[in-house]
Amino acid sequence: MEWEDLAKELSQQTETKIILLVVDGVGGLPVEGRSELETARKPHLDALAKAAVCGVTDPVMMGITPGSGPAHLALFGYDPLRYDLGRGILEALGSGVEVGRDDLVARGNFATLHDGLITDRRAGRIPTEENERLCALLNEKLPRRDGVEVKVFPGKEHRFVARFTAEGLSDDLSDADPQKEGKSPVPTQPFDAGAAKAAAIVNRFVDDVVEVLKTTPKANTALLRGFSKFPSLPTFQDLFKLRPAAIANYPMYRGLAKLLGMEVVPAGGETGDLFAALEKSYSKFDFFYIHYKKTDSAGEDGNFQKKVAAIEELDAFVPRLRALRPDVLVVTSDHSTPSLLKGHSWHPNPFALVSPTAGTDDVDVFTERACAKGILGRFPALRAMPLMLAHALKLKKYGA
Amino acid sequence: MEWEDLAKELSQQTETKIILLVVDGVGGLPVEGRSELETARKPHLDALAKAAVCGVTDPVMMGITPGSGPAHLALFGYDPLRYDLGRGILEALGSGVEVGRDDLVARGNFATLHDGLITDRRAGRIPTEENERLCALLNEKLPRRDGVEVKVFPGKEHRFVARFTAEGLSDDLSDADPQKEGKSPVPTQPFDAGAAKAAAIVNRFVDDVVEVLKTTPKANTALLRGFSKFPSLPTFQDLFKLRPAAIANYPMYRGLAKLLGMEVVPAGGETGDLFAALEKSYSKFDFFYIHYKKTDSAGEDGNFQKKVAAIEELDAFVPRLRALRPDVLVVTSDHSTPSLLKGHSWHPNPFALVSPTAGTDDVDVFTERACAKGILGRFPALRAMPLMLAHALKLKKYGA
Repeated sequence: MEWEDLAKELSQQTETKIILLVVDGVGGLPVEGRSELETARKPHLDALAKAAVCGVTDPVMMGITPGSGPAHLALFGYDPLRYDLGRGILEALGSGVEVGRDDLVARGNFATLHDGLITDRRAGRIPTEENERLCALLNEKLPRRDGVEVKVFPGKEHRFVARFTAEGLSDDLSDADPQKEGKSPVPTQPFDAGAAKAAAIVNRFVDDVVEVLKTTPKANTALLRGFSKFPSLPTFQDLFKLRPAAIANYPMYRGLAKLLGMEVVPAGGETGDLFAALEKSYSKFDFFYIHYKKTDSAGEDGNFQKKVAAIEELDAFVPRLRALRPDVLVVTSDHSTPSLLKGHSWHPNPFALVSPTAGTDDVDVFTERACAKGILGRFPALRAMPLMLAHALKLKKYGA
Repeated sequence: MEWEDLAKELSQQTETKIILLVVDGVGGLPVEGRSELETARKPHLDALAKAAVCGVTDPVMMGITPGSGPAHLALFGYDPLRYDLGRGILEALGSGVEVGRDDLVARGNFATLHDGLITDRRAGRIPTEENERLCALLNEKLPRRDGVEVKVFPGKEHRFVARFTAEGLSDDLSDADPQKEGKSPVPTQPFDAGAAKAAAIVNRFVDDVVEVLKTTPKANTALLRGFSKFPSLPTFQDLFKLRPAAIANYPMYRGLAKLLGMEVVPAGGETGDLFAALEKSYSKFDFFYIHYKKTDSAGEDGNFQKKVAAIEELDAFVPRLRALRPDVLVVTSDHSTPSLLKGHSWHPNPFALVSPTAGTDDVDVFTERACAKGILGRFPALRAMPLMLAHALKLKKYGA
């Protein structure tokens, strides 16, 4: 029996509440002997670790660096080696674009085509307002094709989402993006025969965009990548009988949460807004996913001090989590983002769980090295969800 | 998706270098309170552990004692429960015998047959020169059979390799060896109908050997065991895009390395020769497997002090590994060989990894008990390869 079958069989709805705070990319590596977590002054996170049982998690497998999609799936109890989410679908859902079962979506860039070459893959990072104007123009002027509906949705600067609606579209397509500047545009190619129809529709769309935008100075073509269809995923309700809420500033995480059946609670863009949204919606749900992005962004920038500051900024809000007295409170990350590596990494994530059913261990600071000595040991992130459910007494006994 | 598919998808060739030193059977058990590693004076291995992140590995599964084949496969990233290597194939390849896809190979012993009983399974350990003479004689005098080619290759003392070439040979055969002296010879038996042809050919070969050697005083028959065909294994190049080198004194380890696509770098028989070969070939490869056998041999002999001495002998060479400044340096073992047990065991292996992308933990001696408290925790040996590749930045991100 697989974990998902167990989850369906054993999960039960209860009044208990779980809060999962994902401090994106918080795990790091020592620079001059100390990691970002070992450098930051974070009395509240440390107090939490002291009240918690701790461990470290591998998102996918030892040694494997995950993208945000697989890393979050694992943390939510979905095997990241089984479910493969296209980036396009995450971007689309995160941007509030409705995606149906017959839809094919892709991430788009407006780009500059000059003398047959892509001279700027981001069209000089046109202002968002110009992007909105161009999308409206395309939605109005693009020629109608039989049995196909195409719509574009503006994002920030040069980014947009394209949605193709037709029967029998496959997402088994290569990116229609030369990846580098100074190269010719590349059409999408089907990876198998079943995707030929989708490829033809996508390539005709790009031709139509070039025609409609031929007098626009910079943004006169489109690059498309990450083609994806609505994935078939069981929801949190199906698997865990939860009423889950997601509180996140960034579109991709909201999109992912929606895919899993979470309700996205609106929140402002400041760190404090996440916690205000949590407090306001606390009575309505029994599972809360809160996503804090700044630690990951600073790590990606390779900015050690900025990541330290992001940890310290978050630390001040931790008491507001504990004040709610959830039955289970977990603070962890989806993956590590060491400033030293300027990107995601394979290093395991510190994990701290506070619950009346958990006891404590002797870890008293929230760091990579301290948590590695915690009573939970080293475990796959995929086991975080059963652990949280268990501590919330939401899983019945297996077998007699 | 399986690890091997991930490896193929994510691995990338880079300039970084990995050194894996396998200290065969180094893990042991306490005798009067201290294991061999806890007894040896080994300042350089301890300094390495101090600069490393440490852990312990299970070769196959907790409680399972592996042979050298499965233990090495796991360490090289090949699931030892999926790939089953016959000992014959390892011996053959290690001895420099060419093995093709239609070949069936076996390990042979010259033995003494007297009054219908095997009275000496090793024919009095005849000198190697006598073995060479007998093999030449057999290759000349054995009767030719239609559609079958048989050749024997001398090893040391009484040992040889037999190679049968014919279409449709299976290696699903029992050993043609009574295992004990004073018993009648036993013919090989096919484990299934598909191996009947191979069994007939092998048993006729043994009859032919007895006929050809009937006037030889001691070595007048042959025992055969470990029947094996060329296994179908992906190579290090296929899986990891590595240019791998193997440096080992013993045939079996060279044979295994060849099977996986490693180039065997010639080295003399002394411990120092391993390190000289490494230094000489260092610019030509990006993965180096170095095999040190003395620790295992002493453990198999049940000689605690000899194993301690083997550890101390190796210790002096550790600085030469570190002087090369590889991007990843791992010191570990394939399996444990406690002197107390006089054989391989199921105990986990100490594991130390030094890399600029790894940080350190607070383990400061290279012993079984100290490494078990390391930050890497306890993990399957099968995860050593992804971990080494990751620290060498040879694995791309999984998913978006």
